[in-house]
Amino acid sequence: MKVNGYAALEQKAKLVPFSYELGEIGSEEVDIKVSYCGICHSDLSMINNDWGMTQYPMVPGHEIIGEVIAKGNAVKNISVGDKVGLGWMSASCMSCDQCMDGEHHLCAKSEATIVGRNGGFADKVRGHWSWAIPLPKGIDMSKAGPLLCGGITVFNPIILAGVKPTDRVGVIGIGGLGHMAVKFLKHWGCEVIAFSSNPAKKKSILKMGASQVIDSTSPEELESISGKLNFILNTTNVSLDWNSYLATLAPKGKFHTVGAVLEPMEISAFSLIMGEKSVGGSPIGSPALTKTMLDFCVRHNIYPDVEEFPMAKVNEALEHLEKGKARFRIVLKN
Amino acid sequence: MKVNGYAALEQKAKLVPFSYELGEIGSEEVDIKVSYCGICHSDLSMINNDWGMTQYPMVPGHEIIGEVIAKGNAVKNISVGDKVGLGWMSASCMSCDQCMDGEHHLCAKSEATIVGRNGGFADKVRGHWSWAIPLPKGIDMSKAGPLLCGGITVFNPIILAGVKPTDRVGVIGIGGLGHMAVKFLKHWGCEVIAFSSNPAKKKSILKMGASQVIDSTSPEELESISGKLNFILNTTNVSLDWNSYLATLAPKGKFHTVGAVLEPMEISAFSLIMGEKSVGGSPIGSPALTKTMLDFCVRHNIYPDVEEFPMAKVNEALEHLEKGKARFRIVLKN
Repeated sequence: MKVNGYAALEQKAKLVPFSYELGEIGSEEVDIKVSYCGICHSDLSMINNDWGMTQYPMVPGHEIIGEVIAKGNAVKNISVGDKVGLGWMSASCMSCDQCMDGEHHLCAKSEATIVGRNGGFADKVRGHWSWAIPLPKGIDMSKAGPLLCGGITVFNPIILAGVKPTDRVGVIGIGGLGHMAVKFLKHWGCEVIAFSSNPAKKKSILKMGASQVIDSTSPEELESISGKLNFILNTTNVSLDWNSYLATLAPKGKFHTVGAVLEPMEISAFSLIMGEKSVGGSPIGSPALTKTMLDFCVRHNIYPDVEEFPMAKVNEALEHLEKGKARFRIVLKN
Repeated sequence: MKVNGYAALEQKAKLVPFSYELGEIGSEEVDIKVSYCGICHSDLSMINNDWGMTQYPMVPGHEIIGEVIAKGNAVKNISVGDKVGLGWMSASCMSCDQCMDGEHHLCAKSEATIVGRNGGFADKVRGHWSWAIPLPKGIDMSKAGPLLCGGITVFNPIILAGVKPTDRVGVIGIGGLGHMAVKFLKHWGCEVIAFSSNPAKKKSILKMGASQVIDSTSPEELESISGKLNFILNTTNVSLDWNSYLATLAPKGKFHTVGAVLEPMEISAFSLIMGEKSVGGSPIGSPALTKTMLDFCVRHNIYPDVEEFPMAKVNEALEHLEKGKARFRIVLKN
């Protein structure tokens, strides 16, 4: 079966139309006709080979919403015709301790959708059935794509850290991931404080449900909430003044990063010890949790703020993202 | 009431006999006749003013076991004649959010036994009733002192991190704190791996219940347990190769430090993110948890390995500790 998409042929290149043969379907695989695909910052990082693991030509795209059009004979859960979502991961081994424990996203043999395989900036994509998440009834497919990577990435920490509706929480960086985090936490029942360095976003952020927007470049504003937050989620991947943020945590507070800053995080042991605080991190989330998150989104009508581009205008869309203009997530439509 | 003890009159000085007047007892205070007092590394740090908060003259000692000989008229729980333990803290405000939540050790107004007050290297000591922990029946008073500071410091993380009997755990640094941690975790049901750089301690450590002693200076030995530990407790206060230890954690593993290393801990965000790992810290523990720990110790006959010195030989005892000769905790006897 032939797939028509858009690929980067080399590092930092514009995407060009690109076709490839999928070959015979594996017994545990499904083929998905792509309806929508969100654009994630990781797509840019992979196009640019920032992480040294890109294999060209590479079709980006890993926030996929579509319909199953074929399946192998050992596929479980999924039928042809089902509407599904496919995110950062497309396969796991299904048998290691992590997979057997429902933590397929921590499987050492898991395969990312656009690492050594081709993704969703195309008319079709293939993956293991376990990562093709059945969409709940009533979901708005045109806006759901970003939930499959960005969404689950910020939803998972809420579960991991045991965030409670009575908590006062902070979100650092209100972009694609951060704006979904604000919405999740607002619907979780929390008092949400957003950290942003861009005053132009303030009105939108308050509308999303934040009770307050703190200018993250102002030591005085950080100081004003000293000791008040039970949980902070960092969605940026730049070096921060970590200990200033730790100081905004209440005793027993948790700082959690999903932003993969490359420089070491310089953490003061005293900051952790004196207030029983911790610093953690996480990647995406499990298939089971992704399903739970989608149910939660439908029940509460939670969607990312989406800007739609036709798939053919993928380069314009990428440029829009690269310039920091996305408000707040871009979705490509086939 | 006159107290006779041993005080440091200036930074890094030998202790000398020292008497002071206690003055009238506060309505919520108790006076304790000291039977035994453990020596903690923090006593040395305070004598040397390592943390810049020592007020001389200062009587060290904060692992106190004794008998209540007087009490104020608003004291709860405690009667004259009761056997009690008094640890790092001697008072909390009793009314802040942390105190009201049973976390008196995180109270911002809490007072440490030897910071601005005098401790247990003496015949008597005074504290707030809430920190005078009633000793359970059957406890060996001659060995219990070190539980009040070192013990609760390593017991609290086991609770905080939710360590399970099915976990494989590591303890870094097998000194006063670390050897109690090995014993607690062994009785918790865990498989315990000790990290030590001192081969002379190996036999004792295995006897305490460790299944394996890893030479913490050997990258090969660290590598041999890569990805295997669910929890690591660090009791040292020196800079470690943090990311090598994080690599020994299994997915979802927790690294916890009670050692207050002064240099920033350089933590790789990727290490945290890829395995859903975290780095936390804690000081001592609450009065309620200290009581629970003492019950656990009596039930399982868990005590530190103790070397006893008469109180009058306090300087010899401190020198023994300073030279790294303590096996594994020193207790002074009145």
